[in-house]
Amino acid sequence: MKDTSAPVELLVCIKCKRGTDVSAEGERPGTALYERLAAQDMPEGVTLTPVDCLQNCDHGCSVAMRGGDDRWTYVYGNLHEASDTDLLLDGVSLYRDTNDGLIPWRQRPEHFKRNCIARIPPLRKAAPNLTDL
Amino acid sequence: MKDTSAPVELLVCIKCKRGTDVSAEGERPGTALYERLAAQDMPEGVTLTPVDCLQNCDHGCSVAMRGGDDRWTYVYGNLHEASDTDLLLDGVSLYRDTNDGLIPWRQRPEHFKRNCIARIPPLRKAAPNLTDL
Repeated sequence: MKDTSAPVELLVCIKCKRGTDVSAEGERPGTALYERLAAQDMPEGVTLTPVDCLQNCDHGCSVAMRGGDDRWTYVYGNLHEASDTDLLLDGVSLYRDTNDGLIPWRQRPEHFKRNCIARIPPLRKAAPNLTDL
Repeated sequence: MKDTSAPVELLVCIKCKRGTDVSAEGERPGTALYERLAAQDMPEGVTLTPVDCLQNCDHGCSVAMRGGDDRWTYVYGNLHEASDTDLLLDGVSLYRDTNDGLIPWRQRPEHFKRNCIARIPPLRKAAPNLTDL
């Protein structure tokens, strides 16, 4: 059975310095990105989760999206706390609207097309058949 | 309850060209890496899974490790099909021996220290407390 209604999680790396020289007391760009998202209403079916380092430190700020056993998990990078909250809210809504986590290419935000860091297959996906390669 | 005995999956991107110019008939480096691993005995508690693109195309070959709801999922890149099978078998054994997916730093293979592409938190991990930052 497809897990179409599985809730979606938007994970934000709150430790990210985004290549900046943040002082010990200064707010990190990743924390700022998280707080700007937390100040907004999440789309229905989406929860926001702070994460203590997604280890995509060379290409931050970084987020991940996951949702149930049927969706691919995606990691996106090169996000900016000042300008990318709307992009992320739109993007995670599109992701939530999929059964498998694959946003159709034509709908996929340009930033997602160019800044996918990695993806992890869903737990319930059948492995590809090597003879099909 | 800790999911200490959860089985571990070693996922290998079989589509990876590793920056090479593979002909349509040629074997892709990612497929070769998968086949070299498949020709060996996996460590106890570890299964090998081919994946149709982990989308870490700029830094392949790529693998991911996951295992249950208590372990972090890791993506590693810059692997070579000719030389890195032993590294991966050792590394996935160390990963399997953890409860949370965090291989202690001193034990962590050098390649893993320098070529972690991203990691995804476990489903059962408590979110970090922002006041602790």
